[in-house]
Order: sequence, then structure tokens, then C-alpha cells
Amino acid sequence: NVVVILERTPLTEDLVDDIMSPATDYSIEMKNDIYTSLRLFPKVSAGALKSTVIHPATEKHINKYKQHAVFCVRETASDYNNITLPYITSSSFSLQWLYNLLAKKAEVDRIVYEDDDQVNGFMLVPDLKWDCKQTSNLYLCAVIHRRDIKSIRDLRGEHVQLLENIRDKGKQAIREKYQFNVHKLRIYFHYQPSYYHLHVHFANVSYNSPSCTLGKAHAIDDVIDNLKMDSDYYSKCSLTYILKENDPLLEKFKEAGRCFD
Amino acid sequence: NVVVILERTPLTEDLVDDIMSPATDYSIEMKNDIYTSLRLFPKVSAGALKSTVIHPATEKHINKYKQHAVFCVRETASDYNNITLPYITSSSFSLQWLYNLLAKKAEVDRIVYEDDDQVNGFMLVPDLKWDCKQTSNLYLCAVIHRRDIKSIRDLRGEHVQLLENIRDKGKQAIREKYQFNVHKLRIYFHYQPSYYHLHVHFANVSYNSPSCTLGKAHAIDDVIDNLKMDSDYYSKCSLTYILKENDPLLEKFKEAGRCFD
Repeated sequence: NVVVILERTPLTEDLVDDIMSPATDYSIEMKNDIYTSLRLFPKVSAGALKSTVIHPATEKHINKYKQHAVFCVRETASDYNNITLPYITSSSFSLQWLYNLLAKKAEVDRIVYEDDDQVNGFMLVPDLKWDCKQTSNLYLCAVIHRRDIKSIRDLRGEHVQLLENIRDKGKQAIREKYQFNVHKLRIYFHYQPSYYHLHVHFANVSYNSPSCTLGKAHAIDDVIDNLKMDSDYYSKCSLTYILKENDPLLEKFKEAGRCFD
Repeated sequence: NVVVILERTPLTEDLVDDIMSPATDYSIEMKNDIYTSLRLFPKVSAGALKSTVIHPATEKHINKYKQHAVFCVRETASDYNNITLPYITSSSFSLQWLYNLLAKKAEVDRIVYEDDDQVNGFMLVPDLKWDCKQTSNLYLCAVIHRRDIKSIRDLRGEHVQLLENIRDKGKQAIREKYQFNVHKLRIYFHYQPSYYHLHVHFANVSYNSPSCTLGKAHAIDDVIDNLKMDSDYYSKCSLTYILKENDPLLEKFKEAGRCFD
């Protein structure tokens, strides 16, 4: 068994001269008034592909790279209590790596900002997806110090102060450290999150990652407003999220009688 | 002046044989255990580029294709009344094309479903971005018959029936016409919308277009829940959205004393 991944390489500025050279063949597909549509055949270097080969590949590898159907799940408050919460609890995802970070036993050099208050405090670190080089894809995460909030489902009116503290001090730290305009920040939670200890994403709004789509991301300002309107909003509301067909949580919804076929 | 747009062409299945042929040069970038990373140089046809040329181009053309900074605007209810609503009204976007559609004077052959009730009815048509060929990027729009609702800001509790009607009959029509699993649908509004006559987007949830990100899209189920909780929710809430630096609405916010620099 072998997995072969083929990807187009990004079009970078240094390729433009090569592509726009007289040596490049072309065919005209459409011409109308001032608009022309062409197909260009630049020399092979400009048309390079990136490939990753996994050999020998296990079933797990093959499964990971297969395209999976995705489904929208509408989780009511009672679904959370009867399906999602038991699933989270029984899966016992380890948070040791996170507790190491919060206790400064690891990643100490990556801390961008810390408020060490044990009730409303948090630690701000670059997300692993960000190389910290350019702000065009700036991406950081704020992780709270307290350990009693798994996700936005656990948030209540009493946590508004915590959230406003994260939002305001997080913005300020990013403005100061990266000279970044905070009006260009998208600040949000994931639900479902990738780990069950409350954390907040701070990302450049022009960076449209699939992780900030409807059915995955919740703006911190909306969450604060909802809690101010109704302290128990997140214990009562329905939340929509997207699951892959092989996600164990989707299986739990199916077992509970939901049909997604 | 000329605008040249260069894009990689999509990697389609019919290219795989060409790319994986012995004639393709390659260089190995990394090898570690079962993982190998390569750069492939297939023959020029497989590395083709798509290009669009606009010549002669006006300043407007150049401006349209320039990369623009984007900003997050948090619009309070009073911002809507004092800034956004006057802007929408004074800009007087023409809806004639839409009224032609609703009156069946145009695009008649594109109608997928119609409920001709003048209060709760709507027309379902494929979005222009969808070629109607494959359901992998299925994308339709439901346009309401009544003309008194510009956007979600105008929605009140009395409109829940209209929204539920669109959601339920829209899903049913898509299931029947395309044999499409409605659990794979993302159903949402845009705010700000591209035109100010209420319409609903029905898209394949696996199609992550930039138009369904946080700060642009609002799930119809969330909107219905909010209206059921508080009939005046959308006349009171704050809404976050993303504007390009050259958007006239952003200028209005700046004139009102908001700083985005």
C-alpha cells in the first residue's frame, strides 16, 4: 500500500518573470472586449508540483488522507448532556501537555503574554500553525489558567469578566508585540474545540482558514453579549457544528437515533 | 494599464496519469522512514496555468484586483440606525434584476422550486457561482417574495414562520432534485449581504468558501432560535462583519469617529 499526495505549489512573485516570458506557450480560450482568458504552459520549473509519498502505508494512513464526507450536527442542550458530555468524559483526552505549558515546564520561551491571576488570568502563545514570521497569517491562542471550563458550553454570566479580560489584554499584547492593528483580528472559540480546556483564538481576519467557518467558530464578542443577555445562554442554546463521517462523536449521535445517511 | 491574473489550474483526476509517468522529472526534498517529500516536474500540459488579461484596464479594474486590507467592524444597534441604514438607503442599489426573477420575466428556466405565497413564499435558484454539474460545490439561493425585509437586521419574531418555511421546503426541494443529503447542507444569511432583499444561502458544507466565515455568515437555525428567544433580537444585538479598506461603508464608520488605522 502506498499513499501519494499531489499538490500544486503556491504561485510566488519570483515565478512571474519565468511565467510571463516569451518562451511560454499559450492558447486563447475566450476574448470579449477588453477581457481575454488564456491557458499558459510555462516551462516545467514554474509548473512544479509538491508530492508526499508514504510507503509502506497502513490502513490508518490511507484513512487519514481519504476525502471524508462532513455532516452538520445541531446539538441541543439535552444532546450535550446525553451524548456529547458523556463522550468527552469517557474519551479522557490528556491535557498534560497543556498543564506543562501553564506550569511553565514547557514552551516557556514561546509565551507572548501572561496574566497569572488564577481566576481571570491566561497565557498567550503563538499557535503551532503560525511560523511567527509574517503577520499576514498571524495566529495566537490564549489558554486560561483555571481548569473548570471545558468549552463555551460551560460558560455562564459569571465568566464575562474572564472573557473581557482575555479579549482586552490579548489585543493589547498583540498590538505591542507585533505592531498589529487589532481591528484586523478575528477573536473566537471553536466548538467542538480540539481540546477541552477553554482557549481563545486570535487570528488575522484576512487569513481565511477553514477553522473560522460557520459551524466551527464563535466570536468572543458574540459569546460575551449572549452571556450578558442571559447568564445561562450556553446551558440552554442549540449549537451547530461540523463532523467528519469517521468522527466517533458522530457515531454517538447515530447511536442515539439520529440519521445522517 | 493592464491587469494580468495568474492562477494554478485545479488538479483533476485525468491529470494523474500524465503526472505519474516515467517522463516526469523529480527531486527528493526529504526522506524519513516511510515518508518522502518530492518536487515533481511534469510535462508542461499538466502544469498549465489559467490567466485572465484585462487590457486596457481602468483604475477601477486595478483597484478591484489589488489585495486590500480587511477590518472587523462591530455594528451596534445604534450604529445600524445612524450609519449603516442611511448608507444603504442613500446608495440605492438597484434590485430590478431580482424583481425580474421574482416576476418570472428572467431566469425562468433556472427556478428549482417556488412557493408562491406572498407572505411566507420564496423562489429557489442555483447561485451563479455553482455550475449545477457536481454536488461537491452545490450552492443555491432562496429569495423571498415579499419586499419589506432588507437583511437579518429587519427580522422579528413574526418572521419565524417565513424562515422555517424556507429552511424546510428548501431542504426538501434540494433532497428531491439533487438526491442530496440535507445533513450536508450549510444554510445561512450574509450580513452585510451583497444585495438588500432577504435571501438564504444553501451550500454544501464541505465547500469552504470564504463567504461562510465568522463575520460574514449567520446560520438560519441560530437566527430562528434568537428570534424565538427575543422577538426584537436583531433590532438590539451587535453584529460583527468584515469590510475591505476601500468599502464606502467602512468610510462611513471612520467619519463617525471610529478609528481603524
